Amino acid sequence: MADTSYTAPVDDYSFLFGEAFGIDVVARATGGELTAEDATEIVAGAGEFAASVIAPLETVGDRVGARLENGEVRLPEGFAEAYQAFVEAGWVTAEAPVSAGGDGLPGAIRAGLGEIWNGSNAAFALCWLLTAGQIHALDAAASDEIRETYLTKLVSGEWTGTMNLTEPDAGTDLGAIRTTATQREDGSWSIRGQKIFITWGDHDVAENIVHLVLARTPGAPEGAKGLSLFVAPKFLVNEDGSLGERNGVTTVSIEHKLGIHGSPTCVLAYEDATGYLVGELGGGLAGMFVMMNSARAGMGFQATGIADRAYQEAAAYAADRVQGRVLGRDGRSPIAEHPDVRRLLLSMSSKIFAMRALGVYAADLLDRAEHDESIAALADFFVPVLKGWTTEDAVQTTSEGIQVYGGMGFIEETGAAQHYRDIRITPIYEGTTAIQSNDLVGRKVIRDGGAAAEQLFVQIDATIAALRGNDDPVAARTADRLERAVAASRRATADVLGFADSPRDAYAVSVPYLLLLGTLAGGWMHGLAVNAVLAHDATSEADAARLTSADFYGAHHLPRVHALAETVAGGEVT
Amino acid sequence: MADTSYTAPVDDYSFLFGEAFGIDVVARATGGELTAEDATEIVAGAGEFAASVIAPLETVGDRVGARLENGEVRLPEGFAEAYQAFVEAGWVTAEAPVSAGGDGLPGAIRAGLGEIWNGSNAAFALCWLLTAGQIHALDAAASDEIRETYLTKLVSGEWTGTMNLTEPDAGTDLGAIRTTATQREDGSWSIRGQKIFITWGDHDVAENIVHLVLARTPGAPEGAKGLSLFVAPKFLVNEDGSLGERNGVTTVSIEHKLGIHGSPTCVLAYEDATGYLVGELGGGLAGMFVMMNSARAGMGFQATGIADRAYQEAAAYAADRVQGRVLGRDGRSPIAEHPDVRRLLLSMSSKIFAMRALGVYAADLLDRAEHDESIAALADFFVPVLKGWTTEDAVQTTSEGIQVYGGMGFIEETGAAQHYRDIRITPIYEGTTAIQSNDLVGRKVIRDGGAAAEQLFVQIDATIAALRGNDDPVAARTADRLERAVAASRRATADVLGFADSPRDAYAVSVPYLLLLGTLAGGWMHGLAVNAVLAHDATSEADAARLTSADFYGAHHLPRVHALAETVAGGEVT
Repeated sequence: MADTSYTAPVDDYSFLFGEAFGIDVVARATGGELTAEDATEIVAGAGEFAASVIAPLETVGDRVGARLENGEVRLPEGFAEAYQAFVEAGWVTAEAPVSAGGDGLPGAIRAGLGEIWNGSNAAFALCWLLTAGQIHALDAAASDEIRETYLTKLVSGEWTGTMNLTEPDAGTDLGAIRTTATQREDGSWSIRGQKIFITWGDHDVAENIVHLVLARTPGAPEGAKGLSLFVAPKFLVNEDGSLGERNGVTTVSIEHKLGIHGSPTCVLAYEDATGYLVGELGGGLAGMFVMMNSARAGMGFQATGIADRAYQEAAAYAADRVQGRVLGRDGRSPIAEHPDVRRLLLSMSSKIFAMRALGVYAADLLDRAEHDESIAALADFFVPVLKGWTTEDAVQTTSEGIQVYGGMGFIEETGAAQHYRDIRITPIYEGTTAIQSNDLVGRKVIRDGGAAAEQLFVQIDATIAALRGNDDPVAARTADRLERAVAASRRATADVLGFADSPRDAYAVSVPYLLLLGTLAGGWMHGLAVNAVLAHDATSEADAARLTSADFYGAHHLPRVHALAETVAGGEVT
Repeated sequence: MADTSYTAPVDDYSFLFGEAFGIDVVARATGGELTAEDATEIVAGAGEFAASVIAPLETVGDRVGARLENGEVRLPEGFAEAYQAFVEAGWVTAEAPVSAGGDGLPGAIRAGLGEIWNGSNAAFALCWLLTAGQIHALDAAASDEIRETYLTKLVSGEWTGTMNLTEPDAGTDLGAIRTTATQREDGSWSIRGQKIFITWGDHDVAENIVHLVLARTPGAPEGAKGLSLFVAPKFLVNEDGSLGERNGVTTVSIEHKLGIHGSPTCVLAYEDATGYLVGELGGGLAGMFVMMNSARAGMGFQATGIADRAYQEAAAYAADRVQGRVLGRDGRSPIAEHPDVRRLLLSMSSKIFAMRALGVYAADLLDRAEHDESIAALADFFVPVLKGWTTEDAVQTTSEGIQVYGGMGFIEETGAAQHYRDIRITPIYEGTTAIQSNDLVGRKVIRDGGAAAEQLFVQIDATIAALRGNDDPVAARTADRLERAVAASRRATADVLGFADSPRDAYAVSVPYLLLLGTLAGGWMHGLAVNAVLAHDATSEADAARLTSADFYGAHHLPRVHALAETVAGGEVT
């Protein structure tokens, strides 16, 4: 019953790589080694692979899900083959940094790939996503021996990686971690403790699993400073690189979750498990922070992907389902032509474009910031905005998706409900929206006196000026709306800065402030798109659709900035 | 693991019955027969019954759910006993109108009971809710014979009722119904066709089920005018009232739904089933409209109930869960003290109070409108606002509930996810939000030139004037905010009236306009509460909490009116 086909948004990425930002961002990022055209081809190839290999497993992943049988996690039929195909096609290696032995695709392309893997099957994509995170962490800090033994296998995709942070009493507050690591005579470490919420903590899609474990060493200081990072494989590795004995880490249980049933979320018990120190003693949290930007941006791409999948299916249903009469038309019409269904679909698609564009923009900015100190603060500033705003708004987007179907949306076989369930984790993991917003307000606004925020606002001013140079009604409306929105955002930023000495006020409105900035940034993305479209003839159907999307976003979503600014101004309600 | 206890919000209802509206609304509605104090006792009694009998079945209803076995629907263990206890305690009879043989409790109390049944177990409550709807329909139109045979059994609660409207090709568009009814020689009718989405269409909690079926008779005009209403029991009824043969209606399947798993949603096949005409031939739709106001208001109470249950559990978890440090406090604190968790909880509770208050207000208004033509239009105006706004905002409230828990919110055993799943149907059934908003804009605003809306605004003006008479900072802020909100709402109403000749513009922004009015009405409810609290000493903790709640709503929710007004002004984005 469900339309489970998936079509990668290749045209949008082509537009974003080559046009939207007024420059070929891929060529800039790669020094001309790759162009927007090459990038579009890569994304199109990923889209075909995702549609044919990964997307067909989305429903079985949800219905059957991961199961724990005799202490081993089993994925539904097809997952192992699909994962092997994914590895063999080179997609794991493609995204790994060059320094780690990967192909080092630029951020803009990784944004597209991240959306596509998640849009086609978010539960499946998480296996790769965690591996990618661990590659970053090991690349930054691991010894040559660990690089040789583990990192190469992760980059090739032969083994997968996990992140072991959370414990029953230590979630957001990692300083409370109680898992211990005690050094043995041979230099290795004995790890003991329990970790929860370990994504893809066990499975049968690859031959070995490398756990990256945050643990406390004897005599280490209390709190977060006493934590170190260890690798602990599922199977120990012999001198010759072959797999040896099972390590002392077992899967106690897997969680029964609201969504992403195809992604096993494990409780792992470490009982004298063998681990190897990564980086310096006490450097555990710093080692984890290395991959935080990419992991958080990755959550933004995931939310965009799931939201777009919800949109694709809802739009297809609405074009197909005939029901009721539409004003001014004879006979019954597809529901897509009813004004409110059209509103829902435009609401979804205009938000998704904004999220997608912001994903490319932020990922590219993070790349550039590695070589350009002047934009480093701005790049860091965008990470919590991208993660927090995209995930929060994408949850609502999947809810709109259900609404398009009416009663059929509530029936699981339709498929819309799965997206609404799957996506609900995205504003929670990799740091809840509150964590993102506290990071934003504390470290990225108050600490630099609002300088990074002002860097954003100045760029929006420039976009507004360019919009004014176009003789077009949508450009004019977009400019007017952005001008008012950026003024409200400057006021809100001043209000947040005014809370520097009353941090409870700042943290009580930090989420509204984050959502305000995300909503504004989304409007900016549409403003850039309008300018890019008007820079050429703008006569195609696709061009007209981009203008309508921008106009809709400006009329339906951007005004939220003003409501949020009013909330921010008030600080904490006591 | 889940805290599944339920506490009825008795204090809020006591406040709403006796204080919030500046009058004892129960005494007014009953001519003094019952007072606010009596009503509070009734609600408290319902709360105890719900907590001890109904709430404990919520989890098993979700996990085990209704199952179809050998053509018969089976509910989980305990449901039948609980339903019998519910009937024996007199709760079905209590809410039925006097004209139908019920106790005829006033609307204000029914709002409270509706919330409580749904808050304790929404899937269970639906069985009663559909029965209550059918009682209204039969009471309005049925012959003495049908009243005697069926209505009395429904009012006593011995039998339950269903509504059979939807067909695969006729959802929102009932004119497309194809089920037929052909008269037999004995005067009864033979019904043939398939109905879908029949809530509690079969079950084992009562001995008989009365289906109210919309069907087309031979030679009837096309479209909705050709529809008539029939009762068709599951078991035919003998002359002496005893149960006879099984009627020709069978359960083909039950739906696998996102939520309310304890409520069987059936596909029913009518194959020469015996039915009896209710009311006039061709009067089917009118017969259904009779119960529309109460059914739609009932959906508002349901959404409020589920949202409050989500709030109660999240608040209990947040008070209990210790994690991280709070600014200015020593040691680790319950997460409820973290600024953003506090924000989430206040966001939930301030919306829930507004919904609850609006439920009591609207239900009472519907009662009064029966005897007072001057408020009939206003009462009708509030029905879509209550249904549409409450259900839409309550969905988001349950999502906030999940967020309070962090990662635990995504684990099904916690219980938060069930509310997020269960509630998602409320903006869909009994008319989607689009249907509500088209009803609002077309029939209740444009048709009367905005008179009913202006009646609301004038009342809010009076509340603002009363707030100005209080020397209190919350009252002053609330007055300022309401004044700006009502001004924006008047402009938005003028904009909608301006679309009278371009209905696509009106219907393209009808949902934003409905949400605007709901948000405004919620702010008004808080304004009334502030005045009521300040009318006495306002020194208790409960009083202080009401003021904080109003202040929070004004700072975080009411500003949305301005964003929505901007959206409404634009009409359709083309």
